[in-house]
Amino acid sequence: MSVFTPVTPEELSAWLRHYAVGTLLALEGIAEGIENTNYRVTTTQGRFVLTLFEKLSAEELPFYVDLMAHLAEHGIPCPRPIAGLDDRRFRPLKGKPACLVSFLPGRPQEQPAPDHCAAVGAVLAEAHLAGTSYPRRLDNPRGPKWWRATAHELMPRLCPEDAALLKEELRFQALYRFHDLPRGVIHGDLFRDNVFFLEGRVSGLIDFYFAGNDVLLYDLAITANDWCLDAQGQMDEERCRALLCAYHEVRPLTAIERGAWPVLLRAAALRFWVSRLFDWHFPRPGELTHAKDPEHCKRILTAHIAAQARLARLWV
Amino acid sequence: MSVFTPVTPEELSAWLRHYAVGTLLALEGIAEGIENTNYRVTTTQGRFVLTLFEKLSAEELPFYVDLMAHLAEHGIPCPRPIAGLDDRRFRPLKGKPACLVSFLPGRPQEQPAPDHCAAVGAVLAEAHLAGTSYPRRLDNPRGPKWWRATAHELMPRLCPEDAALLKEELRFQALYRFHDLPRGVIHGDLFRDNVFFLEGRVSGLIDFYFAGNDVLLYDLAITANDWCLDAQGQMDEERCRALLCAYHEVRPLTAIERGAWPVLLRAAALRFWVSRLFDWHFPRPGELTHAKDPEHCKRILTAHIAAQARLARLWV
Repeated sequence: MSVFTPVTPEELSAWLRHYAVGTLLALEGIAEGIENTNYRVTTTQGRFVLTLFEKLSAEELPFYVDLMAHLAEHGIPCPRPIAGLDDRRFRPLKGKPACLVSFLPGRPQEQPAPDHCAAVGAVLAEAHLAGTSYPRRLDNPRGPKWWRATAHELMPRLCPEDAALLKEELRFQALYRFHDLPRGVIHGDLFRDNVFFLEGRVSGLIDFYFAGNDVLLYDLAITANDWCLDAQGQMDEERCRALLCAYHEVRPLTAIERGAWPVLLRAAALRFWVSRLFDWHFPRPGELTHAKDPEHCKRILTAHIAAQARLARLWV
Repeated sequence: MSVFTPVTPEELSAWLRHYAVGTLLALEGIAEGIENTNYRVTTTQGRFVLTLFEKLSAEELPFYVDLMAHLAEHGIPCPRPIAGLDDRRFRPLKGKPACLVSFLPGRPQEQPAPDHCAAVGAVLAEAHLAGTSYPRRLDNPRGPKWWRATAHELMPRLCPEDAALLKEELRFQALYRFHDLPRGVIHGDLFRDNVFFLEGRVSGLIDFYFAGNDVLLYDLAITANDWCLDAQGQMDEERCRALLCAYHEVRPLTAIERGAWPVLLRAAALRFWVSRLFDWHFPRPGELTHAKDPEHCKRILTAHIAAQARLARLWV
């Protein structure tokens, strides 16, 4: 259960007077969510989701909240922040910045088929296109600078094998400079639990709180690393092809992007291996239960390294 | 059938390349609509409605299109214009300005019960509140100035009885100045066919093309004149009370507004009687079939006049 900040119907009703969304009918905590408190809210005017931000500050929020508004206005199925009578998209509730967004129907697809991967690839490409005109900027806080700094903190805690692998991967990634790859606003965390499906179609992309400006292909690699793996953690060729083809149909990949793909898959695996190692070795108080095993991400990384090595041998 | 401007799937697919809404799956003409051409559009990303404006120009559209975007952003269940990749909310299609909006589920309620009237009253009040911060202005084009000018054109065509009634009502309305009544953005045409219901709740307010800045109570009177009549064209007290109470709960009516209510009911009836008389006596080519019988509106007006006279006698 992830309701860190309890809200009563009375408290919410008072808060909703700042909005034109009708009268509160029902309020229900949402168990999912590690970083924020989420409630399902039903009013006389429809269904909404209330988010109380447990860590993000009012100064940090506009990038994320306005991004969702921008993408939703362009037809991307993502939560649409509701503005208050004073036109603001968030306001304090129980001492936390809080935001009311539109409710999205559908459920995550835990066992995606190639069709699901294609649908996600297409919507991700549309989101990348729609993001082009987004005026705010935020350098992806989980990019190369972050993983180098975090790896430095981690090194003393790692076993020799992991330390060597991490060091070697950092060296490898530093060899590649991504200045020629198309950049833009990325979701940054488009795992299966952040995509809703309804009747076979993508009905929602959620959780934009790892979004930022970065290489677009990095976003696609993060997505592939979660959507296109088989039970052994190896890339499933059919699902990966479905994802890439559908993306390419909407935003054609350049020759440079095709060449960079194996490197970006490794970069995406590295990013999540590093963050999971960090959460594992530096658990935040009260959050131990949420720390996910870093081994899964390490396996993805080593599988990509092995696959690239096989590919390289073909060229020799 | 009101598809004045046919659009083929090929034409629409080409037009949709300016958007991030996915690939066209289905296109279907909508029979309703007298002023514009409407299509139901299904893409891989969801359902939308395409409107081609047959009369409104690109210069006139921003007031209406931005109003819908503003209200939708504030949680009012109205069509939400989708922005193109260039951030514009409408663009030409087949030589007409055209707009893609979100699809709203639900159906109109032709036989409203008091609960339906209450639901409409509450949402209308919320829309009036949400409209407060709308920055654009457009003086209601169907206000007193318009009905006086139109009545002047109509007079020579009317039978003596209608001419006398119209003249007398213009005189009566001119006695009342509405400067003290709260003003704002009004829908201006919230008849039963412009409100969708789903599972007993208002799921959509549509057709904002008579919106403008005017007295808010005038909007409520227009609504009451369509939602709260019995089979004889007399006000149904129960439905009218439901409408007013629910509205008042959200935006409390002032003492001046309560006093002005009978006058505003007559003004609202006059406005539609005049426009129907005009459409009847000056039919536009090819639109004869749409002209509605003005007698219905005249009956509402005379019923309000009689009711007010009865009320006045009580005070003597």
